[in-house]
Amino acid sequence: MHEIRCNLITGDWVIFATERAKRPEDFNHTSEKREISSWVESCPFCPGNEHFTPDERLRLYDSEQKWSVRSVPNKFSVLSVEGSITRQIEGLKHRMSGVGLHEVLIETPFHHLTTAVLPIGQIEQILSAYRQRFLEFYKDSRISHVIIFKNHGVEAGTSLEHPHSQIVGTPVIPGQVRARIDEASHLYHEFEKCLYCRTLTDELEDQIRLVEQNDSFVAFIPYAALSPFHLWIFPRRHEACFGHLQDHELKALAQILKNVLARVYIGLDNPPFNYVIRSLPPSESKTKFFHWYVAIVPRVSKLAGFELGTGMYINTTLPEKSAQFLREINIDHLSP
Amino acid sequence: MHEIRCNLITGDWVIFATERAKRPEDFNHTSEKREISSWVESCPFCPGNEHFTPDERLRLYDSEQKWSVRSVPNKFSVLSVEGSITRQIEGLKHRMSGVGLHEVLIETPFHHLTTAVLPIGQIEQILSAYRQRFLEFYKDSRISHVIIFKNHGVEAGTSLEHPHSQIVGTPVIPGQVRARIDEASHLYHEFEKCLYCRTLTDELEDQIRLVEQNDSFVAFIPYAALSPFHLWIFPRRHEACFGHLQDHELKALAQILKNVLARVYIGLDNPPFNYVIRSLPPSESKTKFFHWYVAIVPRVSKLAGFELGTGMYINTTLPEKSAQFLREINIDHLSP
Repeated sequence: MHEIRCNLITGDWVIFATERAKRPEDFNHTSEKREISSWVESCPFCPGNEHFTPDERLRLYDSEQKWSVRSVPNKFSVLSVEGSITRQIEGLKHRMSGVGLHEVLIETPFHHLTTAVLPIGQIEQILSAYRQRFLEFYKDSRISHVIIFKNHGVEAGTSLEHPHSQIVGTPVIPGQVRARIDEASHLYHEFEKCLYCRTLTDELEDQIRLVEQNDSFVAFIPYAALSPFHLWIFPRRHEACFGHLQDHELKALAQILKNVLARVYIGLDNPPFNYVIRSLPPSESKTKFFHWYVAIVPRVSKLAGFELGTGMYINTTLPEKSAQFLREINIDHLSP
Repeated sequence: MHEIRCNLITGDWVIFATERAKRPEDFNHTSEKREISSWVESCPFCPGNEHFTPDERLRLYDSEQKWSVRSVPNKFSVLSVEGSITRQIEGLKHRMSGVGLHEVLIETPFHHLTTAVLPIGQIEQILSAYRQRFLEFYKDSRISHVIIFKNHGVEAGTSLEHPHSQIVGTPVIPGQVRARIDEASHLYHEFEKCLYCRTLTDELEDQIRLVEQNDSFVAFIPYAALSPFHLWIFPRRHEACFGHLQDHELKALAQILKNVLARVYIGLDNPPFNYVIRSLPPSESKTKFFHWYVAIVPRVSKLAGFELGTGMYINTTLPEKSAQFLREINIDHLSP
């Protein structure tokens, strides 16, 4: 019998159709098998090519005083950094000026490394850079919402191979984000407890969907995961804003992010993936009903007409089985 | 300057970032260049292999009394045809039995043909089969929502090459569908007019986003198209239910669907695409605030972390320019 589960956090129905199930190693994607150089002459993000990416906004250094992480304006920014917000409504045509911020965060000087194989200290620097830029973006009064995300692999939407993330500050709160906040607020009042905190308690009790945990974070596959191996990393401490990540939490996040991505990297053979950090602004950090988190989406299935036409999802794997599969992956040789 | 437009019908904000614009012919996709046979021995949908797809639910014939269209249960149904609807709520875990209907509609006996090159009479038969199965699905009291869709090409999520569509009847109204109905109802009361009818009037007046039209239908690229060449076909007659398509409208829909897909086929070099028919059930056919329509989505861009994390879209083409491009394509040699 098939099963339909409701994802209370995203508001989505997910059909679990496991008769179509594949073995984890059978998920169809282009894995990056070929050798990648650690330095590529034409790559704008490789050391020596810093002049391709001017107006650097942040630079962190390694112990030898070489740069380890840089954040620069996106050359193909989707929003214009200059200008003010104007709105026009002309009948049904609602539009506004596309003003906002869009930076590329170069995660390492090395062209060939991915998060799963980066030293833990390097991941800490990436997260520290995220936190700085995130807080800085919100100082711009035109910005309503900031999203940090990473696209790994062509099928996950990246066009440049050198490891990088992106930070976008938009002048509107995206409708989907607003809808989730509304729903979380509604459920907070129903339960008198944060939906995310309650989810965390339940997952720790159930155990079967857990993938990794440490003192500050828990990584698990949600009960109604939208796609195969869709993962969430929740902070244990209730906090609505990523920017308020404490230093000891930052270290713990680096560790769990590396370990989870290492399991995905080995278990699913370096699949394309996206991760995003979902957060409220610093001004709403004390909100009781929202809880910031990281979502990781290995791109091992395709959205087709059914998903486009209904907004429902079809997942061919059971979260309980996928979590077990990832837990059993040996990642010792990638550990710091 | 970039521009952000609001799609009132889908409720989405779309960023138009045309500095990233590509020429239409530069959209990156795998076009099917190789020769495809008209009959493939191992294909379960080719004539002679009907025993691979038993329990046929509908068969239409051509003038020589050979089958032209068949509808059969999907061998890899995402829902179980047997069983009753049960719901269980256990704390945060909401689930229900995955009961529903899922058929595959084989669109033609010929393995190598796509909608753009099918004879018009064949497309009429496909639409007639859609209408019959759509109405039949709703006779099952367990079904709350029926969606008809087509996946063309691997990147659009198809696994079988032989031209086919799918019809799924779900035991729930998908959340996204419900949200759009709610919004359409809200705007109906604001405007005292159907949002879709009003959109149609505006598009016909503006002209610049029109692609095709005939007596019964208008095809256009929406003002806030979610992706490049995202197209809508609206019936001119206000009607909430696809199942109530009249015979003369069916012929007109076949014509406009063929012409629009021919423009996409030639202009974008046979890209992967999805189409879906969005409709309310027959019992709600008289609803004033909803209007059934066809959405066509050429899969020429990829969803990445930004879209996953915000629900907003980035479109690198302006609807006005894409519509002009498609209007100027010469499709005479594919016309009936």
